[in-house]
Amino acid sequence: MNIDMIRAAATRLQGHAVRTQLVRSPFLDEIAGRRVWVKPECLQHTGSFKFRGGYSAVSALPPEVRAKGVIAFSSGNHAQGVALAAKMHNTSAVIIMPSDAPQLKIDNTKAYGAEVVLYNRDTESRDDIGAKISSERGLTLIKPFDDPLVVAGQGTCGLEIAEDANALGIKDAEVIVCCGGGGLTSGIALALEADAPSLRVRPAEPEGFDDVARSLRSGTLESNTATSGNICDAIITPRAGELTFPVMKRLCGAGLAVSEDEVLGAMAQAFARLKLVAEPGGAAALAAALYRRDQITGDDVIVTISGGNVDPAMFTRALETL
Amino acid sequence: MNIDMIRAAATRLQGHAVRTQLVRSPFLDEIAGRRVWVKPECLQHTGSFKFRGGYSAVSALPPEVRAKGVIAFSSGNHAQGVALAAKMHNTSAVIIMPSDAPQLKIDNTKAYGAEVVLYNRDTESRDDIGAKISSERGLTLIKPFDDPLVVAGQGTCGLEIAEDANALGIKDAEVIVCCGGGGLTSGIALALEADAPSLRVRPAEPEGFDDVARSLRSGTLESNTATSGNICDAIITPRAGELTFPVMKRLCGAGLAVSEDEVLGAMAQAFARLKLVAEPGGAAALAAALYRRDQITGDDVIVTISGGNVDPAMFTRALETL
Repeated sequence: MNIDMIRAAATRLQGHAVRTQLVRSPFLDEIAGRRVWVKPECLQHTGSFKFRGGYSAVSALPPEVRAKGVIAFSSGNHAQGVALAAKMHNTSAVIIMPSDAPQLKIDNTKAYGAEVVLYNRDTESRDDIGAKISSERGLTLIKPFDDPLVVAGQGTCGLEIAEDANALGIKDAEVIVCCGGGGLTSGIALALEADAPSLRVRPAEPEGFDDVARSLRSGTLESNTATSGNICDAIITPRAGELTFPVMKRLCGAGLAVSEDEVLGAMAQAFARLKLVAEPGGAAALAAALYRRDQITGDDVIVTISGGNVDPAMFTRALETL
Repeated sequence: MNIDMIRAAATRLQGHAVRTQLVRSPFLDEIAGRRVWVKPECLQHTGSFKFRGGYSAVSALPPEVRAKGVIAFSSGNHAQGVALAAKMHNTSAVIIMPSDAPQLKIDNTKAYGAEVVLYNRDTESRDDIGAKISSERGLTLIKPFDDPLVVAGQGTCGLEIAEDANALGIKDAEVIVCCGGGGLTSGIALALEADAPSLRVRPAEPEGFDDVARSLRSGTLESNTATSGNICDAIITPRAGELTFPVMKRLCGAGLAVSEDEVLGAMAQAFARLKLVAEPGGAAALAAALYRRDQITGDDVIVTISGGNVDPAMFTRALETL
C-alpha cells in the first residue's frame, strides 16, 4: 500500500470520477473558530466517496477477469459504488444484501445495473451464498475497505485535497475524515504524506463507536462492542482493517468522537450554509470541526462530507435542530 | 450589453466566484428521458448566482466611487450577493429591506457585513429612503437585474456552461434557466451565442407568473398580474427588464411554466439524486426538464439550479413528496 498505487488509481479514475472541489462558508468558520474547508464527496457519483474505491478496484482487474464480473457484500454506499463501477466497465456486479435492507437501497443498487441477491440474516450465511455464487461464476470479490486497490481509490480524494490545499497556501491544518473501516482515512493519509506532508489526518467517529480512536490510543486494533444503534450507520464497522489500521497508526493524529446531536447539527449546517445534503455518517467530520473546536489546532481545518445518501425522515430530523 | 462585458466580468470574478461544475445523475436522466446536466449555482457564494452579478458590479466601480459604498433594495439573494461583494472589496453596503422581511434573511445579510436599513412597507417609501441615504453618502445603486454590469456577471455562468458543454461534446441541447427579471437568462444567452451558439436558452417560470413566456410570445414586455402567492418567490418580479427582455427576445426559445408541485418534486429529486439543496425558485428549470419533457428537444438538456436559500419548513415540504 503506497502512494504509487494511489497515483495509478487517480490515472484510472481521471475523467470518470467527479473531481470535487473544496467549498466553504463564512458562517461555518464563525462556529468553528477557524476556516473550514469541506471536501464534498456527497457530490461524487452514487453520492459517496465509495465510488472511488469501487472504480479503482474494478478498473485494475485484468480484462478477462473483469469480464466475468464482480461481487460485493454491502447494503450501503459500497454496493452502489461497485455497481456503478461495474456498469461503467460493461461488466456485471452481484451485490449480496440482507433481505431486510431498505427497499430504496435495493432499488438504487439495481438501478446502477447490479444483480441484487438477498439473503435471510437469520437462516442463511452471507459468506456461503457469496462463495457459492463467486465460484460458480468466477466473480472477483471487492471488499469495502481492506483491499489495497480500494484504499488506493479512496486515496485519490487525498491527492485532490493536497492539490487544493497547496494551491490555497494551507500549510498548518488538520484534515478530519469520517472513519469506519479506515479506507478513506488511510488513503487520504497516504496521499497527504506524499503531497502535503504538513497536513495531519484525524479520524472522526460516533461516540460509543470510536474503535479507531481507541485503537490509535492503545496501539492495537480494537473493536466496537456494538455495530448498530447509532444514526451514523455508514461508518460503523466491527473494527478497522488489517491493512488500514497500520497506516492510520503511523500517520494519523488522535481520533475525534462526536454525538448524534452534533452530527444532526452538522447536517443542518451543511444544508443551511453549504446547500449540501450530508448523511449522518458523512457529517461526523464536519460535526467535529464545528463542535469540538478545542480539540483541534490550526487556523484552517479541512473536513470530508463523505456521503449524502440519507432518507428524507432522517434529514427532516436534522433540519428540526435549526 | 455584449459578450466583451461578460468576458471582462469573468476576468474580474476569476478566483473570487465559485467555478461551479455541471453535475448529473442517471436517475434524473431516466425521469427526463434525456441526459440532464445541472449547473449548481446553489454552491455559489451566498447560495445563489446573484453573487456573480453583485461582484461584477462592485468590482467594476472606479475605486473612489466604490470606496463610498453601494446600496441595494432587496430582501433576498441579491441582497446577500451585493453584501458579500462589497465586503470582499473592503467597502460598505447598505441594503434596504421591508421591516417584515424574515429575520434569517436580515441576519444573513448583516452577517455578510452589510448595514440593513428597514422600512415600513405601509407608511414609508422605499425609494425615498434609499434616495436620501444614497445622496447623503454618495452610494452607488446596484440594481438586481436591469444593469449591464449585473447581467455581465450573471453571464459568466453562461461562459462556464459553454466551456463545459464544448468539452463534453454537447451540441444540440436546450439550456433551461430559472427566470425572474431575466438577468441570468439574458446573460447566459449572450454567453452561449458567442461560445456555444448551437445551444438555445429557454426561460423557466412558475405557472401563473410566466410574464417572460408571455412576453416572448407577444413580442412585447408583459407584466405579471400578481407578485406574490407562489413558492418560487426568488424568481417572481413584476416584469423583466428593459435591458434583459430584448436580449431574451432575440436569443431565447419559448418559455416553460411549471407548477408548484413540479417545483417541489424537483427539489426532492435534487436532494435524493444530486445531494443538492435547491430553493423553489432555483428548482424551476430542473422541474421543467423532469416533468415537461414533451416540451423540450434534444438528447441533452442543461438546467440551472440557481439558488439554494430555502428555509427548513419549505424544504421538508418538498421532501414529503418523495
